[in-house]
Amino acid sequence: MASIREVARLAGVSPSTVSRVMNKTANVDEDKKQKVLAAIEETGFRPNELARALFKQSSRIIGVIVPNLENPFYNELAKAVEEEAYRNGYKLLLCNSNNNTEKELMNIRMLDQMKADGIIILTYSDKTGQAVADCHLPVVAVDRQLTGSGQSAYVEADHYKGGKMAMAHLLDCGCKNIVFLRGPLELSSGLSRYRGYQEMCQKYELPEQCIDCLYDYEDGLRAAKELVKRYPQADGIIASNDMVAIASYKILIGAGYRVPEDVQIIGFDNIRFSWLITPEFTTVIQPIEKMGTLAVEIIIKHGQGLPFQQENILDVSLVERQTTRRKE
Amino acid sequence: MASIREVARLAGVSPSTVSRVMNKTANVDEDKKQKVLAAIEETGFRPNELARALFKQSSRIIGVIVPNLENPFYNELAKAVEEEAYRNGYKLLLCNSNNNTEKELMNIRMLDQMKADGIIILTYSDKTGQAVADCHLPVVAVDRQLTGSGQSAYVEADHYKGGKMAMAHLLDCGCKNIVFLRGPLELSSGLSRYRGYQEMCQKYELPEQCIDCLYDYEDGLRAAKELVKRYPQADGIIASNDMVAIASYKILIGAGYRVPEDVQIIGFDNIRFSWLITPEFTTVIQPIEKMGTLAVEIIIKHGQGLPFQQENILDVSLVERQTTRRKE
Repeated sequence: MASIREVARLAGVSPSTVSRVMNKTANVDEDKKQKVLAAIEETGFRPNELARALFKQSSRIIGVIVPNLENPFYNELAKAVEEEAYRNGYKLLLCNSNNNTEKELMNIRMLDQMKADGIIILTYSDKTGQAVADCHLPVVAVDRQLTGSGQSAYVEADHYKGGKMAMAHLLDCGCKNIVFLRGPLELSSGLSRYRGYQEMCQKYELPEQCIDCLYDYEDGLRAAKELVKRYPQADGIIASNDMVAIASYKILIGAGYRVPEDVQIIGFDNIRFSWLITPEFTTVIQPIEKMGTLAVEIIIKHGQGLPFQQENILDVSLVERQTTRRKE
Repeated sequence: MASIREVARLAGVSPSTVSRVMNKTANVDEDKKQKVLAAIEETGFRPNELARALFKQSSRIIGVIVPNLENPFYNELAKAVEEEAYRNGYKLLLCNSNNNTEKELMNIRMLDQMKADGIIILTYSDKTGQAVADCHLPVVAVDRQLTGSGQSAYVEADHYKGGKMAMAHLLDCGCKNIVFLRGPLELSSGLSRYRGYQEMCQKYELPEQCIDCLYDYEDGLRAAKELVKRYPQADGIIASNDMVAIASYKILIGAGYRVPEDVQIIGFDNIRFSWLITPEFTTVIQPIEKMGTLAVEIIIKHGQGLPFQQENILDVSLVERQTTRRKE
């Protein structure tokens, strides 16, 4: 394979002139330019992104590791990240880890070797956290907090406030018997929302009624079936997220309940499907697009030598739709 | 930046020995190995994926260009592609083009320069087709047929059969007044489904009743509103895809129709949401996972020097759910 030096020698110019012709970074005398182009032609030299990345120590690639692309929360985030990256001249290397830690580690290693400009990670395991701590790249965890790694930042919504808001809204809607399909407590989202819910229970002297539930549809079906058995008098459900809210709706309708007349449902996230489907679901809005955009910004600023914003908590809000109804 | 030659010179071995140590492709005498490692340390030489890709003329990267990651059909396909790529040791470089031709062209150029092993493209414009024809990589179009490019293949479902099946099913369900929210005729999916529908109309001497509709939810809302105005007596709807079926359902319910009692709805694709939501939607199944897997296989086989399978049409089937009901 021809090198830039051979091209330069043949054209009778310096390698940096060849580079200027290739990258169009500065004007080059037309005569020299033609000689360079002829030499490139003759040697079969092919300038490429890879060589440029080696040279610049940057590939202008941002790696994104998502647990499941089919989950709307993740694909909406990935979309926001991709658009912000594109606007800034970066490409996205996407890994759908399927919660497979080995795959995550492989991807982190690979991105490190590729000299990616940073990693945005939407998943979490202790092993992954360690790999992140060991790698040379800036890492931004979105909707997760990674522990014990110096170069990492996180972006997440104010889940504590979200948990309080969800409970307050169902109380405003007249619910007397609220059950929380509680997300995983080992994740900051699950724990903080639960703390918000808990505080409201204490404030209004209500018993805590929780069923643990993962963030996916299938586990939502299981948890909702358990709810119908354990709390048949429930008149309000706080689902761990919108997918679980959609699953709960199916189980409740199948069991003969009317929504919102008999039981009201609220989710978290505000994924696009929460309002595309019928009925439209009440939910606590996570600013998904803003989270993705901010994650990219943090990596780019880091690359420019600006300080790393480590902790980023964004505000949440609530949107009332057809699965809840305020008392008159 | 140190080169592999400098490392070799310093260690007193050949560059290929350095390569063997780095890549662990063969046993190297322990003494030599230590010398190589010391030389790597001393020079700061960093073996990396990029250099390896330059050397091998392959980056083991497959590029995927999707028009919209938020659309379940595309993210389900992207997921299938990613998983098959991973199983074979390839990475995915994902581009969400948002139907932006400039962005598609930029990405095709970039993938070409990166020496990607191939491109899987789920979008189409004339310009994009030309860029694909001009680039050096094998390209597989999924659910699209690219015209006039030598190195491209396509994978798609048998849309003609799908169009016939959808119409036959609504007739089996007793519909007398069927409207087709017809997908774009410039796409093979839209045209072939329409031809299938048309053939059934001729066979049963029924008038064609079509409203043109894009493949997205928003245009589905518009087309369904037009349907309610123009064909208030409609008792069967063939939606251009599942997203449009979901949009039609919302409009019809809002207009006071019952589904499936007053009007029956069938979609295309079998995206995951078509059965997660309530009611569950009848649809013509595209084998999404198989399409993604096959696209990757085609690229890998091409890389191995095997013949390029250019035309790949996969079979479709129909799944009956809650938005249609057969006559007793």
